[in-house]
Amino acid sequence: MQFDLLILAPFGSILALLFAVYLAAKILRKSEGTEDMVRIADAVREGAHAYLRRQYAGVAIFFGVMFIVLMVLALNGHLPIFVTFAFLTGGFFSGLSGYIGMTIATKSSARTTNAAKNSLNSALQIAFSSGAVMGLVVVGLGLLDLSVWYYLLNWYYSSHHIPHGMDKISAITSTMLCFGMGASSQALFARVGGGIFTKAADVGADLVGKVEAGIPEDDPRNPAVIADNVGDNVGDVAGMGADLYESYVGSIVATMALGVAAFGKLGLSLKSITIPMVMAAVGVVSSIIGTFFVRTQEKAEQGALLTALRRGVISSSIIVAIVSFFVVEYNLGLNYIGVYYAVLSGLTAGVLIGFSTEFFTSSKYKPTKSIAEASLTGPATVIISGIAVGMLSTSLPVIVVAIAILASYYLSGGAGDPNMGLYGVAISAVGMLSTLGITLATDAYGPVADNAGGNAEMTHQPKEVRHRTDALDALGNTTAATGKGFAIGSAALTALALIAAYRDQVYILGGKINLSLMNPKTLIGLFIGGMLPFVFCSMTMKAVGRAAGAIVVEVRRQFKEIVGIMDGKAKPDYARCVKIVTAAAQKEMILPSLMAIIAPILMGILAGIDSVSGMLTGATVSGFVLAIMMANSGGAWDNAKKYIEEGNFGGKGSAPHKAGIVGDTVGDPFKDTSGPSLNILIKLMSMVSIVFASFIISYTLMK
Amino acid sequence: MQFDLLILAPFGSILALLFAVYLAAKILRKSEGTEDMVRIADAVREGAHAYLRRQYAGVAIFFGVMFIVLMVLALNGHLPIFVTFAFLTGGFFSGLSGYIGMTIATKSSARTTNAAKNSLNSALQIAFSSGAVMGLVVVGLGLLDLSVWYYLLNWYYSSHHIPHGMDKISAITSTMLCFGMGASSQALFARVGGGIFTKAADVGADLVGKVEAGIPEDDPRNPAVIADNVGDNVGDVAGMGADLYESYVGSIVATMALGVAAFGKLGLSLKSITIPMVMAAVGVVSSIIGTFFVRTQEKAEQGALLTALRRGVISSSIIVAIVSFFVVEYNLGLNYIGVYYAVLSGLTAGVLIGFSTEFFTSSKYKPTKSIAEASLTGPATVIISGIAVGMLSTSLPVIVVAIAILASYYLSGGAGDPNMGLYGVAISAVGMLSTLGITLATDAYGPVADNAGGNAEMTHQPKEVRHRTDALDALGNTTAATGKGFAIGSAALTALALIAAYRDQVYILGGKINLSLMNPKTLIGLFIGGMLPFVFCSMTMKAVGRAAGAIVVEVRRQFKEIVGIMDGKAKPDYARCVKIVTAAAQKEMILPSLMAIIAPILMGILAGIDSVSGMLTGATVSGFVLAIMMANSGGAWDNAKKYIEEGNFGGKGSAPHKAGIVGDTVGDPFKDTSGPSLNILIKLMSMVSIVFASFIISYTLMK
Repeated sequence: MQFDLLILAPFGSILALLFAVYLAAKILRKSEGTEDMVRIADAVREGAHAYLRRQYAGVAIFFGVMFIVLMVLALNGHLPIFVTFAFLTGGFFSGLSGYIGMTIATKSSARTTNAAKNSLNSALQIAFSSGAVMGLVVVGLGLLDLSVWYYLLNWYYSSHHIPHGMDKISAITSTMLCFGMGASSQALFARVGGGIFTKAADVGADLVGKVEAGIPEDDPRNPAVIADNVGDNVGDVAGMGADLYESYVGSIVATMALGVAAFGKLGLSLKSITIPMVMAAVGVVSSIIGTFFVRTQEKAEQGALLTALRRGVISSSIIVAIVSFFVVEYNLGLNYIGVYYAVLSGLTAGVLIGFSTEFFTSSKYKPTKSIAEASLTGPATVIISGIAVGMLSTSLPVIVVAIAILASYYLSGGAGDPNMGLYGVAISAVGMLSTLGITLATDAYGPVADNAGGNAEMTHQPKEVRHRTDALDALGNTTAATGKGFAIGSAALTALALIAAYRDQVYILGGKINLSLMNPKTLIGLFIGGMLPFVFCSMTMKAVGRAAGAIVVEVRRQFKEIVGIMDGKAKPDYARCVKIVTAAAQKEMILPSLMAIIAPILMGILAGIDSVSGMLTGATVSGFVLAIMMANSGGAWDNAKKYIEEGNFGGKGSAPHKAGIVGDTVGDPFKDTSGPSLNILIKLMSMVSIVFASFIISYTLMK
Repeated sequence: MQFDLLILAPFGSILALLFAVYLAAKILRKSEGTEDMVRIADAVREGAHAYLRRQYAGVAIFFGVMFIVLMVLALNGHLPIFVTFAFLTGGFFSGLSGYIGMTIATKSSARTTNAAKNSLNSALQIAFSSGAVMGLVVVGLGLLDLSVWYYLLNWYYSSHHIPHGMDKISAITSTMLCFGMGASSQALFARVGGGIFTKAADVGADLVGKVEAGIPEDDPRNPAVIADNVGDNVGDVAGMGADLYESYVGSIVATMALGVAAFGKLGLSLKSITIPMVMAAVGVVSSIIGTFFVRTQEKAEQGALLTALRRGVISSSIIVAIVSFFVVEYNLGLNYIGVYYAVLSGLTAGVLIGFSTEFFTSSKYKPTKSIAEASLTGPATVIISGIAVGMLSTSLPVIVVAIAILASYYLSGGAGDPNMGLYGVAISAVGMLSTLGITLATDAYGPVADNAGGNAEMTHQPKEVRHRTDALDALGNTTAATGKGFAIGSAALTALALIAAYRDQVYILGGKINLSLMNPKTLIGLFIGGMLPFVFCSMTMKAVGRAAGAIVVEVRRQFKEIVGIMDGKAKPDYARCVKIVTAAAQKEMILPSLMAIIAPILMGILAGIDSVSGMLTGATVSGFVLAIMMANSGGAWDNAKKYIEEGNFGGKGSAPHKAGIVGDTVGDPFKDTSGPSLNILIKLMSMVSIVFASFIISYTLMK
């Protein structure tokens, strides 16, 4: 018997977590700087934790209710009983990833500022290490949860009854698939709530601070300034952590589920589910190696800094690309080496989407420059050209993903057996996400740098300190945009895999399904699914507007009622702003998140499973396109404004600059609230459909 | 033998055209007013005709090239030879509809101004009659073209060889289907070119005139003012005429094509194709009757004016709803009376989409008011809330269309025979458009009122004249938005019918097709199709920006170089502005229009017919949703600005008003260029696929 590689998964998990602990310890040994700096950092940390506590309390209620619902379904035979617990652990670990990542981020910001007093590289090391902790915690906890459930279920089903119509492996994978739903639910709440918080605080602080009172960004006289910094942590760190935890485990469980259908009849089920798990473990090692490549010199320009980060990502990708070959070969043999090409096409697609994102959102290239130039004729033309850039930017990622789908499908044998092709599509998403440990690190370091800059500003550090943190922050915008491209690209592939898994689930349950485009039920599903991302974005954008409005009112009140704020003689009430936007975000996140869960169930009851399949596909297609558009429009507006601030088209304070700020403000909810939530939305809807499949088949009104 | 009702089609056509001539003569008998007024009207007329001449010259080259391409395909056996000529007549009549409508519109504007000196009702009568001429010319020419081709082909195939795999009726309908491609091509050029012209002139005139020079709208000192008025005619009249001609004949030929597949084996082919033609004829009569219901009193508020127009539309709809029953019953008998219910669901869906549009875009309701309120916090929040309103507004039309699809499919027997269901979906679009004669009249009267207002302003008419034309103009915004909802709703249904017709065409040609959502080729088609409307909108919006930029430069130059413009002592060079924007629109319309034609052919060659089907469906879904969003965002911004101008949130000249203007400017290309072109795009892509089906099947790289 061959050595069972699957055991590498728990080892990879432990390795990732240990290295995260090591990095965290290294960060914590550094000084946080002066008393002032610690005080600011404390305030942000407290605000961020207060927010997360409140958020998790709210989400706990949701999880409680869902637990009961799932339990009722399980007791009525619609689900294996394990699913209810898998659901809970998925949600728990997703939330934990965000929590740990955020804790270390809030502990790193002042340390980054302090290190920036020495050199750019020391600042980069701390900020990047903080990001790496986040990245490794996400992959470590993901692999942990996956491993524990796998071994638990494997042990259980070895001695207990296996549900009707399944073998042992498919019983395991279909339960594990369901824990994705827990992770996705948690992630959606985290992304939406955090996204609303961060952008409401940002927009609100800017509207009264910068525009009305004319004080600079991050000015300590602005009562919303702490809330703004808190927002970076709860949205861009905790939200993103939960999100990518979900993407990561989602891509793996979807692949495992499809592996059984593809390789079951060849007796290779176990091998096919081993591959994604082991690739993830390989990704851990390669990510850790990659982190050692990230360093820079003092006089580094933005280009050199980007290269420093890229070096880390690219070395990891190369390692994965090489080792995966042996993983596939060892498990499936050279006959099925096409699966390896599927992995490669996923990896390549991820890189290409990254380049496309950079082209459309960096001020080095024409698209963003054209937005900056449009500022000469006012805010309206800035908006029009920003939306036009975002819309155009959808073309490349869609074409790249389309080619990746075709390539991974046919290279892994889809022409002979469609199930193998679908497995190939699923594993290409795993390939894209395998280096998540390090790509997430380059992404999550941005908010740390951003907060470090805020800390420098509020504690009146020397110019060169702020200059260094600014250099790191500016780069963070580009890596954040790239990270979003990754998340949404892999989401499209994973969503397709989940739709395929949904179909398989329906078959296992003995249901019938007609996926033809000429089936009117499928068609109306496509239309309604295509519409949902728009409605979801509408809800989340309006929520940001309302929450920002509440901040505006409060900041105005403090300016009026607290005498001496403007002279620096009185301290504003920072905590109250944090509280207000926390409450608003909590309230506003409920409706859009519930929509994702209720829509597929309602569609199923009203119009049956054909419509649900159509709906999932429609939402994937339009959600994918819309998410890219919103992320890239937002990123391009942000950088166009920065480009003007660098002295182009009139520079800071000019009319074009004001027009550029309008674009940036519109882009805020685009890129940090609505856009990034869409990739969770489309997967969560698929997960919900899978979990409720049996219920829907029994109770639909249109059989 | 029963009496062959089909003969009613040519009679309906002649009746429509005769009544149009009667109305036109009635309008032309009225006086155009003072010398001044005639001079302005002449300038607009000349500019508009110069534009159309240039446009048709450009489009003629395209038609020449396509004629040769189609001829080559025909000579190689890929097409019946008739198709090449059908293509030409479709294009010709579509263009002619726009030309005649625009001619009468430009002849009516000064007459409306002059009539407004007497009373609101006399002004309404002229403006509305002008719209009715357009409406009746569109349906009259549409029915004429359809009838001539039907009888010609019927005669020809009675004595000549019928192509392999077809019977006589299917040979007729598949040729007629292809003339839709001519109409759609012409319509797309007209919509895109006209849309770019009108918004470039509008935005350009506003940016320099209103914003920089501080002179009011329609001020004769603005060199771009005539171009702006010309734009209303070439975009909102000629473009819309060509567009709805295309929608009208498209829905009828698609239904006829599906009729053969559904009723052929019952020997009822002829009956099934008679129904849409006769319903169109019934629609002509009901529209003419409806026009007599449109009148108002002097003291009419906007509500009463809207009621006046609605009365006309609703009486027509009721007549169609009643008479259609007998049309279906006479042709197919009570066994297939479900087809009648499909007609009804189309009619009802049209009305509901109209209500939804009104709710989201009229300042009477909360959505538009919320945009106006957002102006208090500046342009950024106006943009965010406008986009949010547009996105939310997609929900109702999508759900309504989804229900209409299900209802028309199943009520007309889709459960037993899918082909009957698809025929039902197609005929529901015919139902929605049957009253086009009058709905188009209520839509096309808007630009006439708009121009009448411009004329009043430029010739310094007394206040009450301008007040009356303003009342008509304001209403025009609402009816225009409703008209767009209609166009896009029917487009979704027709596009589905065309996709079904495409599938049938592939079957007839002996091709195989796999429309499953789990077919990777179909899937990537869905993704790429879903992306295309975004790229298309990006291209057209950028085009508006570039063309508007050219106008801005020119107007600034005239202000600087022509001494005495501002004191009214020197006349600006209006013609040069018209020329510049004409040239720009001509250049800019080429690329997006060609994309619609090349994309499905390229997709077919690269990835085969499964991908083409997916692409058409993806484009229909995302194009439908995006078109509604853009039209409604644009309409809501426009009316939010007007609401502020009425004195809310600060009124004219306040900071919120300026923020509102930003929204309105962004909305201009949304609602008048990109949005309305989408409904043509999705149909033209289907038509192209059908015409090139045989070619693709032979030459695709992925069989």
